[in-house]
Amino acid sequence: MSKEIGITSKKSEDFSEWYTQVVIKAQLADYAPVKGLIVLRPYGYSIWEFLKSSVDQKLKATGHENAFLPVLIPESLLSREATHFAGFTPEVFWVTYSGDSEIGDRLALRPTSETLAYSMYSKWIKSWRDLPLKINFWNSALRAEIKATKPFLRTSEFLWQEGHTVHAEKEEAENEVTSILEMYRKTVEEELAIPVILGKKSDKEKFVGAIYTTTMESIMPDGKALQMGTSHFLGQNFSKPFDVKFLDRQNVETFAWQTSWGISWRLIGALIMVHGDDKGLVLPPRVAPIQAVIIPIYSSQEDKDSVLNKASEIKENISKGGIRVHLDSRDEFTPGYKFHDWEMKGVPLRIEIGPKDLSKNKVVLARRDNMKKTDVAFEVLVDGTINALNDIQSDLFARAKTILSSKTKDVTEFSQFKKEIENGMFVRSPWCGSQKCEETIKEDTGADIRVIPFDAKSSEFPCIVCKSPSKTTAMFARGY
Amino acid sequence: MSKEIGITSKKSEDFSEWYTQVVIKAQLADYAPVKGLIVLRPYGYSIWEFLKSSVDQKLKATGHENAFLPVLIPESLLSREATHFAGFTPEVFWVTYSGDSEIGDRLALRPTSETLAYSMYSKWIKSWRDLPLKINFWNSALRAEIKATKPFLRTSEFLWQEGHTVHAEKEEAENEVTSILEMYRKTVEEELAIPVILGKKSDKEKFVGAIYTTTMESIMPDGKALQMGTSHFLGQNFSKPFDVKFLDRQNVETFAWQTSWGISWRLIGALIMVHGDDKGLVLPPRVAPIQAVIIPIYSSQEDKDSVLNKASEIKENISKGGIRVHLDSRDEFTPGYKFHDWEMKGVPLRIEIGPKDLSKNKVVLARRDNMKKTDVAFEVLVDGTINALNDIQSDLFARAKTILSSKTKDVTEFSQFKKEIENGMFVRSPWCGSQKCEETIKEDTGADIRVIPFDAKSSEFPCIVCKSPSKTTAMFARGY
Repeated sequence: MSKEIGITSKKSEDFSEWYTQVVIKAQLADYAPVKGLIVLRPYGYSIWEFLKSSVDQKLKATGHENAFLPVLIPESLLSREATHFAGFTPEVFWVTYSGDSEIGDRLALRPTSETLAYSMYSKWIKSWRDLPLKINFWNSALRAEIKATKPFLRTSEFLWQEGHTVHAEKEEAENEVTSILEMYRKTVEEELAIPVILGKKSDKEKFVGAIYTTTMESIMPDGKALQMGTSHFLGQNFSKPFDVKFLDRQNVETFAWQTSWGISWRLIGALIMVHGDDKGLVLPPRVAPIQAVIIPIYSSQEDKDSVLNKASEIKENISKGGIRVHLDSRDEFTPGYKFHDWEMKGVPLRIEIGPKDLSKNKVVLARRDNMKKTDVAFEVLVDGTINALNDIQSDLFARAKTILSSKTKDVTEFSQFKKEIENGMFVRSPWCGSQKCEETIKEDTGADIRVIPFDAKSSEFPCIVCKSPSKTTAMFARGY
Repeated sequence: MSKEIGITSKKSEDFSEWYTQVVIKAQLADYAPVKGLIVLRPYGYSIWEFLKSSVDQKLKATGHENAFLPVLIPESLLSREATHFAGFTPEVFWVTYSGDSEIGDRLALRPTSETLAYSMYSKWIKSWRDLPLKINFWNSALRAEIKATKPFLRTSEFLWQEGHTVHAEKEEAENEVTSILEMYRKTVEEELAIPVILGKKSDKEKFVGAIYTTTMESIMPDGKALQMGTSHFLGQNFSKPFDVKFLDRQNVETFAWQTSWGISWRLIGALIMVHGDDKGLVLPPRVAPIQAVIIPIYSSQEDKDSVLNKASEIKENISKGGIRVHLDSRDEFTPGYKFHDWEMKGVPLRIEIGPKDLSKNKVVLARRDNMKKTDVAFEVLVDGTINALNDIQSDLFARAKTILSSKTKDVTEFSQFKKEIENGMFVRSPWCGSQKCEETIKEDTGADIRVIPFDAKSSEFPCIVCKSPSKTTAMFARGY
């Protein structure tokens, strides 16, 4: 494979350029003609489909249903909850014309659907019998990005799911917030092999309009933290302006308790950054469109026939074992080219088979994550492949967990705090709880409170900034 | 069930009002705050998911892949193919602002994605090795509707899939057009139990920018024809302006051959119209979110316990048989209310169980389509349910087929033609092939050529309008 086709930047040297090259050259996504927008190519979309299917199944198993909302929201409706509207208004795309006709009440392209969903819910919910209402929407959100585009991480339209639930009881709503976040954690850790930290956002960082926001965070190899999913407790902040109320069992009209939550294709960005290497993408087997690729190796026509026959047979068997396997029988490329091509695309396992392997009734299994090769006999190949894929999945997670630990630092002095942030660390420090100290940190270091972990302990040390007694321990980093 | 909750219009008396009531009261969809837009509620979305899954599987089995395109298309790009642009421009929603900033090159909300997809394809395709490229997009299209909204049939945003393929050979592209239309027919006839007629559109009615359009049509009970899916041969009409070309095996740069095709949630509209009755929706089992509903019947507490126990056991067994079954154990409603509620929602099969049934080790199966009741013994209940669902599916199709036949008329005289169109018939008549005669028919009767069936024979009779020799036989009707 020529230099030009492969990844030409090193992850450790120019992370940003490396990331972009992996996205484009592994054919995950491409830039659309409009600045800030990307197209998701089939290979990238297929990863999204595996992630989507995993979340969708879990949602349905817990009584959630899917539905569809239009992308257009009238300005009058969007502005009904004032704080919420103010939070989104600089990023809103506005439709002002249909054909040649100017539209009176401008239409916003959905930045998020709370307002539209709840104006519908207020029509649909009459009594306690209609609750809980738990609806999820697989759609896209549109938020005009002013900064430079970063595929999956910063684009003006992104694929996501947004869930919106309504409950009769406050406690039930808060349980929903928690169990959704836990479902996200399970999905991200088990499917994407990325360890995360769960907790709350500070009031400054919470979702505009929420009582509080719970979040799932991780730190990327470049030292920037990534918010990987959020679950919001909305209380009655929306049910009051949107009139989402019900007759309770005592026939008393009551405002409902609400939640909203979402994950997006940003998780694909995390996947690339956490597991990728200088050769390109490294996909965890659970979300890999192709889990194993068979590369036949031959030089003579005679060898070609026997190798290809066996390769087809192997493909058949492995496929029956439930593995997504591809036989690369392209004649116009050398095995070496194919090795690099599939490595760049992150296929977890390569199965090499040549005349010598054939004579010994075995193949070579090559792992993408650690490049290790093993001989595996034909007769145990299906089990051997399954085991190797399981090993890769758990090794990727273990490795990412070690990195997360090594990038997490407990700090109690502000001078060291600044240094560790500069080093791209996820810094855990005592905090007094005041927004003023949060702002000081932001100004001095560029770091935000990413998450106040659920298991955070109050510290014996004082606030990292003002030295007054700390209320809790928060995790700080610069963010995406 | 009170009159107000049930359907209050008759299908035979006020079809339009009946249709709207079924959509709203069966909770398939609701009106959004913006005129012309609807929200798809979970029950309606679930039907869409079954349809989608059926099509998606067939597409993947034939080598198509899914991907994602943004909803925003720059005006400059949309206008690159002039006829195409002219066809859509009156219906386009225009984004002119992002936040407070005016946008230079206005952005169209996707009315269809040919232009955007092909501007990407021209970057991705280099050689014959990259072909065929067969990509499908599950998204929504936006076309501002000026006429009154009709849920599923006429809305300014609608869910659909659009497929866009690129081929090295003309013949291969034309085969794709045909095989996609055949896949649509199979899906609609087998899943939705709606018989269709396949053929070509006239040049006047074809997709703007296509060489020709093939279509799948049917006639609705109100005598209006419905276009249920189209598959277009684009030739090189787009590959030339969008520069979709490849190096062929002789290393010669060649413009590619293209197709595009789509079906939408309009098919849910067809489903409602074709199978529904005065009690509401009638769902074919293959796409019914709930295929069988169990209604327990009791008056005493003692009966309640034994009936509910048995009902749960039955639910468990039937569910294991692969049937989507729901036990309606709501205590606050009478069995009679529940009967009407689920009838309105079109659940194909009702399973009634009361103390008398219990003592005889049987249940009552009630079919939604023909309201017939049968006793079925516990021990054969799973098979009995499966058989009944299969019978309903095929009976619905047979019934719809009979209706389609009875509404199809062969006519050779224009006076009779006018009468039959007025009667809401699907009229098959000889046609000379001229657009002038098509226009005369449209002016005089409001009917269009809906489809020139693939099996149309040239007629011995002259053109229905101008009396010159006919070229073919076409099917005319007023349309949605």
